[in-house]
Amino acid sequence: MKRELKIAVIGGGSSYTPELIEGFIQNYETLPVSEIVLVDIPEGAHKLKIVGQLAGRMIAASGLPIKLEMTMDRRSALIGATFVTTQMRVGLLQARAWDETIPLKYGMIGQETTGPGGMMKALRTIPVLLDICKDIEELCPDAWMLNFTNPAGMVTEAIQKYSRVRSIGLCNSPIAAYKWLSSLYEVPIERIHCEFVGLNHLHWISQITIDGKSKLAELLANKEGYSARNVPQFAWNGTLLQSLKAIPSYYLKYFYLQREMLEEQQQAASRGETRAETVQHLEDELFEIYKDPELKEKPKQLEQRGGAYYSEAAVKLMNSLYNNSRDIQTLNVANGNTLDFLPKDAFIEVNCQVTSEGPLVQPVQVVPEAAKGLIRSVKTYEQLAIEAAVTGDRGMALLALTHHPLTYSVNDVERMLDEMLEQNRRYLPQFFARIH
Amino acid sequence: MKRELKIAVIGGGSSYTPELIEGFIQNYETLPVSEIVLVDIPEGAHKLKIVGQLAGRMIAASGLPIKLEMTMDRRSALIGATFVTTQMRVGLLQARAWDETIPLKYGMIGQETTGPGGMMKALRTIPVLLDICKDIEELCPDAWMLNFTNPAGMVTEAIQKYSRVRSIGLCNSPIAAYKWLSSLYEVPIERIHCEFVGLNHLHWISQITIDGKSKLAELLANKEGYSARNVPQFAWNGTLLQSLKAIPSYYLKYFYLQREMLEEQQQAASRGETRAETVQHLEDELFEIYKDPELKEKPKQLEQRGGAYYSEAAVKLMNSLYNNSRDIQTLNVANGNTLDFLPKDAFIEVNCQVTSEGPLVQPVQVVPEAAKGLIRSVKTYEQLAIEAAVTGDRGMALLALTHHPLTYSVNDVERMLDEMLEQNRRYLPQFFARIH
Amino acid sequence: MKRELKIAVIGGGSSYTPELIEGFIQNYETLPVSEIVLVDIPEGAHKLKIVGQLAGRMIAASGLPIKLEMTMDRRSALIGATFVTTQMRVGLLQARAWDETIPLKYGMIGQETTGPGGMMKALRTIPVLLDICKDIEELCPDAWMLNFTNPAGMVTEAIQKYSRVRSIGLCNSPIAAYKWLSSLYEVPIERIHCEFVGLNHLHWISQITIDGKSKLAELLANKEGYSARNVPQFAWNGTLLQSLKAIPSYYLKYFYLQREMLEEQQQAASRGETRAETVQHLEDELFEIYKDPELKEKPKQLEQRGGAYYSEAAVKLMNSLYNNSRDIQTLNVANGNTLDFLPKDAFIEVNCQVTSEGPLVQPVQVVPEAAKGLIRSVKTYEQLAIEAAVTGDRGMALLALTHHPLTYSVNDVERMLDEMLEQNRRYLPQFFARIH
Amino acid sequence: MKRELKIAVIGGGSSYTPELIEGFIQNYETLPVSEIVLVDIPEGAHKLKIVGQLAGRMIAASGLPIKLEMTMDRRSALIGATFVTTQMRVGLLQARAWDETIPLKYGMIGQETTGPGGMMKALRTIPVLLDICKDIEELCPDAWMLNFTNPAGMVTEAIQKYSRVRSIGLCNSPIAAYKWLSSLYEVPIERIHCEFVGLNHLHWISQITIDGKSKLAELLANKEGYSARNVPQFAWNGTLLQSLKAIPSYYLKYFYLQREMLEEQQQAASRGETRAETVQHLEDELFEIYKDPELKEKPKQLEQRGGAYYSEAAVKLMNSLYNNSRDIQTLNVANGNTLDFLPKDAFIEVNCQVTSEGPLVQPVQVVPEAAKGLIRSVKTYEQLAIEAAVTGDRGMALLALTHHPLTYSVNDVERMLDEMLEQNRRYLPQFFARIH
Repeated sequence: MKRELKIAVIGGGSSYTPELIEGFIQNYETLPVSEIVLVDIPEGAHKLKIVGQLAGRMIAASGLPIKLEMTMDRRSALIGATFVTTQMRVGLLQARAWDETIPLKYGMIGQETTGPGGMMKALRTIPVLLDICKDIEELCPDAWMLNFTNPAGMVTEAIQKYSRVRSIGLCNSPIAAYKWLSSLYEVPIERIHCEFVGLNHLHWISQITIDGKSKLAELLANKEGYSARNVPQFAWNGTLLQSLKAIPSYYLKYFYLQREMLEEQQQAASRGETRAETVQHLEDELFEIYKDPELKEKPKQLEQRGGAYYSEAAVKLMNSLYNNSRDIQTLNVANGNTLDFLPKDAFIEVNCQVTSEGPLVQPVQVVPEAAKGLIRSVKTYEQLAIEAAVTGDRGMALLALTHHPLTYSVNDVERMLDEMLEQNRRYLPQFFARIH
Repeated sequence: MKRELKIAVIGGGSSYTPELIEGFIQNYETLPVSEIVLVDIPEGAHKLKIVGQLAGRMIAASGLPIKLEMTMDRRSALIGATFVTTQMRVGLLQARAWDETIPLKYGMIGQETTGPGGMMKALRTIPVLLDICKDIEELCPDAWMLNFTNPAGMVTEAIQKYSRVRSIGLCNSPIAAYKWLSSLYEVPIERIHCEFVGLNHLHWISQITIDGKSKLAELLANKEGYSARNVPQFAWNGTLLQSLKAIPSYYLKYFYLQREMLEEQQQAASRGETRAETVQHLEDELFEIYKDPELKEKPKQLEQRGGAYYSEAAVKLMNSLYNNSRDIQTLNVANGNTLDFLPKDAFIEVNCQVTSEGPLVQPVQVVPEAAKGLIRSVKTYEQLAIEAAVTGDRGMALLALTHHPLTYSVNDVERMLDEMLEQNRRYLPQFFARIH
Repeated sequence: MKRELKIAVIGGGSSYTPELIEGFIQNYETLPVSEIVLVDIPEGAHKLKIVGQLAGRMIAASGLPIKLEMTMDRRSALIGATFVTTQMRVGLLQARAWDETIPLKYGMIGQETTGPGGMMKALRTIPVLLDICKDIEELCPDAWMLNFTNPAGMVTEAIQKYSRVRSIGLCNSPIAAYKWLSSLYEVPIERIHCEFVGLNHLHWISQITIDGKSKLAELLANKEGYSARNVPQFAWNGTLLQSLKAIPSYYLKYFYLQREMLEEQQQAASRGETRAETVQHLEDELFEIYKDPELKEKPKQLEQRGGAYYSEAAVKLMNSLYNNSRDIQTLNVANGNTLDFLPKDAFIEVNCQVTSEGPLVQPVQVVPEAAKGLIRSVKTYEQLAIEAAVTGDRGMALLALTHHPLTYSVNDVERMLDEMLEQNRRYLPQFFARIH
Repeated sequence: MKRELKIAVIGGGSSYTPELIEGFIQNYETLPVSEIVLVDIPEGAHKLKIVGQLAGRMIAASGLPIKLEMTMDRRSALIGATFVTTQMRVGLLQARAWDETIPLKYGMIGQETTGPGGMMKALRTIPVLLDICKDIEELCPDAWMLNFTNPAGMVTEAIQKYSRVRSIGLCNSPIAAYKWLSSLYEVPIERIHCEFVGLNHLHWISQITIDGKSKLAELLANKEGYSARNVPQFAWNGTLLQSLKAIPSYYLKYFYLQREMLEEQQQAASRGETRAETVQHLEDELFEIYKDPELKEKPKQLEQRGGAYYSEAAVKLMNSLYNNSRDIQTLNVANGNTLDFLPKDAFIEVNCQVTSEGPLVQPVQVVPEAAKGLIRSVKTYEQLAIEAAVTGDRGMALLALTHHPLTYSVNDVERMLDEMLEQNRRYLPQFFARIH
């Protein structure tokens, strides 16, 4: 009765793709995917081939009637798609290395999803995504676009503001929090309920119940619980947790432990290490494994990357959209009336009820007072940066970054911005068009 | 027809008092003050005597029927007062020196109205003011309390939340901006209109017109215009001004030029200079001058202090309250529906129409987008700090300061906070009561 | 592991009670009720005995270990209760007859849940419920009170404002709408989703989907679908439905078809018929049936009363509260940020997700523009009437009724109000206390 | 220094024009009008000539250098205009007679500014005004348009929504209230302050002070004070006034005394009287007087029309806009954040501070709770009716009128609407275009 279910995976050559394929295989009964198209750009052709062949072996082993295709023709991939997922890295790991190292020269944190580095990633990525959206509007206007390209909150907000595509932002942090709690308490995820409030990579968990009973107090006594491999493992300050009465995302260490994180980055840099390089090594290893013609399933090693569960989150969301499940998932969607100190069109990370018409934001019951200023500050930066990404206005980019809590001087910001813009020139036509 | 007009000046021994007296003399026709009581605490008895005698000579020279009294009995001073003004410094300049120097040891800016220093001043001051308010509620419940004790926005918000006294917060910055424009354009203040938006010591001027014509564009080209003696004179970043499209208060240099301001403070400290000491010298000089029995008017030297025009602002406000003038003044009052990203009970610095029933907030027409995050961040800090001041909750004080944009690490904040609380122990009974 | 599950049924002698008992029996597996206490007042002792004996036979036949008690001692009934339900009629059907007939003399509609009659019911009922709430606060402060005493929205809002009891308002209309759709489309209720927006007895269904597909357009073509036995069966105006783009509650016929409904009431009255009398006959018949010592189940005839499904709704709600089910139910709860043209503390009828901590309001996606004025008008009346009920202020009652859309002249309202207050004098001590 | 000051008077042949001319003459010193163009349509040529000649004689007698022109070429009149005023009656008094009589046949009030009659006037008028606005956008885009064409609130809101013209709505009621108070208390208007809240023809005065002292209590004891010649003189209900704690506009008698007003209209109609006819007689008399070649000033008789002071209000507003006076006037402007139960773009009647950039809404301090529902209801009607006027959607017109508090049955409304649309067919091309 339901129509063909076609998935277009933009950035299909990503090392995460096998997880996605595994998800489709495992959920076939409720989400009967008929066709998967992996799309990538010419620079990614080599990775696409390796990943695509592994995906093909996985599907063949499953015995399911799923058609798989690999292509570099994005437009043909989109025709008739039910869901589009995007995971891409404009400028590849090279650009990430710039994002992580140039700010350090100016005494600021270099991070790929927030602060100076995150803004550069947004400036490079948003125009590319908006371009994809133009194709979607034309070729599959009813498709849902699931965006997990970082900075996911900003990118999805930009899509909402500048296109008519139905898009939802996704992060692996919320699902990782559930997995952590499930393992800690040895109960299935279904019995756990968390209330998330904030933005992408800037959330707090303000309520945690198991079978309706709060576990918050005991979890606040734990200074190391909720963490991730891709963020340095500093312990939390105990007084802070007790007073906040909410568990901060590990990404909030960049804010609450700014000095320590900056020093850690500076030391790592002086040792010649960067996160971009670490990831490059992990990637290289993964692709070596993927090449094994005997491999017919997602390798265990994939779980050890920072982005574990991304694809699980994506398949879960597609499943609920497709089946009108009305279950609760934590997504990046428009604020509406939820947080009264943010604009209605600001994207937030929040519990939603997922229906076939899209996610319905659930009202947030507890918003930590202390978090409100930081959320508003980062949202202000995000909205200015989105405008800079679309207009190519250098002054707007300066304004955005100057108002970001991880910068300290408009003059330093201006000098750093000029170096970063110049370094990224080839990926930022909107900023340099007038000069050429 | 109107009742006796009695003024109670809490902190009457302040060096600013002669300006206030001059204001009453000059405005006698519309604001016929019948009695002025200068109140101070025993530690200030010496200064009170010097200032009081000068005030007496000034009034005598004017020939006006104004009764003058000096006292250390605050309660008797309040009986039947029409207006109460407060200007005080709990802990005197000694405590200010702590506020300005201890943060430097931890790599943070030391400033007496914001950041760590400002919070300590609030923690010392708010309970004292609330105590005065209890007396006002009992002895002169209809009085207007004009508060220019810093941090004026926070102190006045605390009074609004925790007492029934009708209080208005006042700062000299807005009137100073008008004086600067009046002198720059050689037009009387009446022909100038500015729109202020933000908080006390954290405002932006978003519109400036003379005879209804905007002067904003040309003023944004001037990187040094709107400044004050008590804030270091760094020039503004030109790109910032052009993109903001609003003129920031000179206090915003602590935020936009954090690194530079911190370095300047560290250098001054290494030379053994602090603002507290400079002010102490100015004060000593002023009191020497005040002692001269031939002096019968406000001496010129007073205008060279940071707080020039404070008393002018106060007299102007009393005049309008008394006469229901309905003119526009920039005051610290409750937000109401004015700024939709702040709570209704948050105090903001904004244009008001002054009636005999109190100030009516004027709607703000232009709010710089970029300013919204910073305003919300500082307001979040302020509201947490007010709560800490009233409850003596150390965790709340940590939360407040950790979320202030001028701090970088919750761990550093915790260590600094402990030193500052200990240093201020005698002025912070609410934090130490349980220990004794 | 969970504690004893005790239910206190205030107004236990109601003819609806057998439905409630049936619900507890059918849901015993998930809602293991250990004790049910039926409470009533001395005037209801006779009915309580009949109903209680039937309930006893029903439980005995089920073989379940549920303890049943009947009492007139409300306080003992409340001790340790998990859930309290209330269904009462202060003044019995006699007072309902006044509510339905006196307004007709003044040219206004007589209806027991809205307009003049509804207000009188609220004035009689709210103080009694608030009295019960005082007992609950003392004797079972953690209990949930499920209120289906009409006017249920107003009564529950009054409880929220004037007590600390956790209360939820319930109506049978939403569940009846689902039953109607389920039977019309021959699909189980689980596959149907309706969005309700408005107030109790004043809602619109703005979205209807089956398996995620909208059925609204075809249902709007049906002028007679959604109706009830206790509201006259006028057809809807087709143009109205098409333009509203939402299905109005049958109670809205009192508003959209005011003239027709008034005429129908006047004709019925001239024939000597009133709804109160019809209900009295139904009640008498039901109690005759209940007396049959062979009867051990809820008789079919009960479904033919206006209030069918009330108890089903109540058991469903208790089940979800008890089991933290997080399913969607349509309830009467505080508005919060849901409808931006109503106060935050106004109770609305809206979809909620039911958790063990209480109902979470779901955001409303579609609010018919045309409905906003009417909703605000009736809410204004409700809030004024609640205040009148609590204070006994006759002027406030006049103000409430004058602003109700079913009245036409403040002067007529004043004369009618005086007659109605006098007629209800014995049930309205708050209005007459000062006179005695 | 200031540019030429040209006034375009659309509907210049109106009997009110001499008052406007008198205003310009009396205010010449501060508002030095250089040119007045009276514009009218061919059907009004005769009246335009009579009024224009009188205006010419008045200006000549004043000796001022004001150029006067009469024309039927609207576009030429608009070129370079500083202010445009509009006072027009699409369909003339004939259409007003329909508005006032057809509703009576269906048992509803016939009134030219609200209810069925008011909606028809809006449907006829809005498209014509929007047409004029297109010319203004092209020919004098910086002009202020002062609209006192009724229903003034709706018409101005429509202009705001559907054009880029800067428009302000004006009514004579507020100025009339001041005149009444000035005469009652024998004090000049400058010493009186009123707070108006609500919509055009639907306001309440919630505060009245003289020299800052409230007169509200004593004025609420007066049941007949604030009234107008064009609204029947029923006394207010005393309990209502005491409970409202605000003075309702005399137009509110159509709502609070619906039954009485309807009966009065029905009786007048049975005597063959309508307001349209009364006005026609007044107009005829006035024009006879205007023809007198010896008449060189505004005749006394003009003050006895319902619209007295309209032109005074208009000249006062122009004066303040021109001189950036920043005085308080009661105008129809966009709500913004003022009333939180209305949309931001809803026009309300409220105190404003008038600057050269336009009116700044003053925050409303007291909003009678009871008024909120009625205000929201009428605003809902207004917004639906505006949409109907622009789109010609009959269903939307039905929806608007059905939700108006002065109608009782959607079925009656539908039949009446059809008769009224048909009767007005020639003035409603938007509703009939598709049929032709």
